[in-house]
Amino acid sequence: MGRNYNVTVVGATGMVGEELLRILAERSFPLGNLRLIASARSAGWKIQFRDRDIAVEALSERTTFQKGEFVFISATDEISRKYAPLAAQAGALAIDDSGVWRMNPEVPLVVPEINPDDVTSHNGILAIPNCSTTPVVMALWPIHKHNPVKRFVAATYQSVSGAGRAAFEELKRTTAASLAGEAVNPNVHRHRIAFNLIPDIGSPSKEGYTSEELKLVNETRKIMHAPDMQIAATCVRVPVLVSHSAAVFAEFSDPISPEEFRKILSGQPGVVIEDDLTHRVYPRPYESSGKDPVFVGRIRRDLSHPNGIAFWVVGDNLRKGAALNALQIAELLIARGHV
Amino acid sequence: MGRNYNVTVVGATGMVGEELLRILAERSFPLGNLRLIASARSAGWKIQFRDRDIAVEALSERTTFQKGEFVFISATDEISRKYAPLAAQAGALAIDDSGVWRMNPEVPLVVPEINPDDVTSHNGILAIPNCSTTPVVMALWPIHKHNPVKRFVAATYQSVSGAGRAAFEELKRTTAASLAGEAVNPNVHRHRIAFNLIPDIGSPSKEGYTSEELKLVNETRKIMHAPDMQIAATCVRVPVLVSHSAAVFAEFSDPISPEEFRKILSGQPGVVIEDDLTHRVYPRPYESSGKDPVFVGRIRRDLSHPNGIAFWVVGDNLRKGAALNALQIAELLIARGHV
Repeated sequence: MGRNYNVTVVGATGMVGEELLRILAERSFPLGNLRLIASARSAGWKIQFRDRDIAVEALSERTTFQKGEFVFISATDEISRKYAPLAAQAGALAIDDSGVWRMNPEVPLVVPEINPDDVTSHNGILAIPNCSTTPVVMALWPIHKHNPVKRFVAATYQSVSGAGRAAFEELKRTTAASLAGEAVNPNVHRHRIAFNLIPDIGSPSKEGYTSEELKLVNETRKIMHAPDMQIAATCVRVPVLVSHSAAVFAEFSDPISPEEFRKILSGQPGVVIEDDLTHRVYPRPYESSGKDPVFVGRIRRDLSHPNGIAFWVVGDNLRKGAALNALQIAELLIARGHV
Repeated sequence: MGRNYNVTVVGATGMVGEELLRILAERSFPLGNLRLIASARSAGWKIQFRDRDIAVEALSERTTFQKGEFVFISATDEISRKYAPLAAQAGALAIDDSGVWRMNPEVPLVVPEINPDDVTSHNGILAIPNCSTTPVVMALWPIHKHNPVKRFVAATYQSVSGAGRAAFEELKRTTAASLAGEAVNPNVHRHRIAFNLIPDIGSPSKEGYTSEELKLVNETRKIMHAPDMQIAATCVRVPVLVSHSAAVFAEFSDPISPEEFRKILSGQPGVVIEDDLTHRVYPRPYESSGKDPVFVGRIRRDLSHPNGIAFWVVGDNLRKGAALNALQIAELLIARGHV
C-alpha cells in the first residue's frame, strides 16, 4: 500500500459529504490528512471522524489545495465551477459531484465498475455521474457488453436527499404538518412534496425535458461509450428520504430472456439481484438505504417488445449514487498508480 | 328527465363507496331510493347523504336486488363474483369495480368518453376499469383515434387509497410512527410504505408481472378495441394518499409533435392539460385529488423514438378511477334508454 493520501472534502456538512466521511471511516482507504471544508455558515463546526473531531474550515478566496491530494467536491454547481480547476491547477485531483464538468470532453465521467480505463486521461478533474444515472447504468452495462442496448426508457422515483439536506428536512417537516392537519408550506421543493409527487427535477431544459432527464440521457451515453444509444426519461421526485429507484424498459440488439439477464447480472461487482416476485422479494428504497450495491429486481420480458426486458433498480443516491462512487474513483486512481 | 332510479351501493363504507355518495350528492343524477350496503362490521352505521341519515345494511345471503335499480359494487373480488350475477338475475344493473368481470367477453368494460357504445350489449353486469388503467386510456384514446398507438410502456405511481381504507390509514399511521422514531410495522401493505416504494400491486401473475400490471395491458386493449396494441407496465405503490400517476412513453403509427398531441387532447371531455414546464406547471396527485378530470402534462417528444411521445398523467383513483366512472356509466345507460 505504501503512502497515504491527503483528502479534502468540499461540502463536508452536506448529505453527500457526510456520507463520504462515513464511507471513508468504513473502508481501508490509505488516508493521510483529512481536511473538511464547507460554507462559512458551517465553519467552526466540529465533525467526528473515527476517534477525533475535525474542525470545519470555511471555503473562501484564500482556500488553496495541495499537490497530490484528493479533493472531493459536492456542493453547488458554482463552487464546482470555480474550485475544481483551482484544485487541478495546484496538482490535486478533484473528484466532482456537480453537473458542471461531467459532459466536458476533457473530464472523465467514471463508474469504476463500467469504464475504469477512462480515468487515464484526466487533467486533474474527474466527475461522477448524477445520482439517478448511476443505478441505471450499473444494471444495464453488464448486459450491454453481451447484447448492446439499442434503446431504453426510464421513469425515476427519486428521493428528496438527492436535492440536499434542506429538501430532506422539508419532507419530514411538511409531512408532520400534514399529518397534524396544519398548513404545508414548501420552501425548498417547488411544490408540496408531503404525500405528493413532483415530476420536475433540476431546471427546464431542451425540448420539454428537465436538466435531470437529459443528464440521464447524456451521461449514460458517455459512460457506456454509446453515443447512438436511444434514451428517454421522466424524472420524478417522490416522498422518500434516501435512495433513488427507476422502472426501466430496455431494448437490446438481440432477444434476451429474463433468465439470461439475471445470469449475466449475477455476480457483477456492485450489483445485487433481489428478484422473487412470488415471495414478494424486490428492491425497495428504504431497505436499500445505507447499503453500497445497486439492487435489481422485477426482471421480466417486456411484453411489448421482442428484444425487451423490463426491470426495477434501486440504489442509495448518497452512496453509489455519489460518495461511494467518488471514493471508488480515488481508489482506482491509486491502484493504477495515477496519483 | 322523467323517472328516478333506485340505487344500491355495495361497499358503501369503503373509500370508493364514500366517494360515490359524495359524487352522487353533487350531480343531478335522477335518484330514487338509495340503499347502502356494507359488510356486517359496518351494519347499523348511519351515513349522511344530503340532508338525511341512511342506515347501512349488512350484506348477507338474504340480500336481494330490484328490477331496474343500479347496483354499484366496490368491495372485494369475492363479493363481486357472487352478488353481481344476483343483481343481474333480479333485473338490476350491476356496475362493478372489481377485477372479476372486466375481461369477461359478455361484460362491457366502459369508459364513457371512450367506448360508450359498448354499453349496448350487456347482460346486467357492466365493469369499470382498474384505477390505474383509466387515466392512461383517457390520455391516449383521443390521439389513438387520429394516429393509432402501436406500443406504449407505463410506469405507475399509485396512491394507497387504491388499496382501500386500511391501506390509506396505514400510510398515515406508519408515517407518523416513522417521524416519531418509532417502529414501523406494516399489516396491510406487504412491506413498509412510509417513505418507501413497493413495486408490487395485486398478486404475482404470468411471466413475472403482477395482476395490476396485466390489468393495465388487457383492459386497455379491450376498452380501445385494440387487441394488437403492444403494452408493458411496471406498477408501483407510492406514499401518496389519493390519485394515481403514470409516466407513459407511447409510440404512434405516424410521427406526431407535442403541439399536435396537445391540440388533439385539449377540449377532450374529462381531460385537462396542465403543461408548462417553464412555469413549473404539471399535474401532481395531491392537487388533482377530489377533482373529476384526468390531468396530462410533461407532453414532449420521446427522444428515443421517431414516432414517440412521453407524457405524465394524474387522476383521482377514487373519482374517475372508480366512483365517477361508475356513475357516468349509469348516466349513459339512462341517457341511451337502456334501463
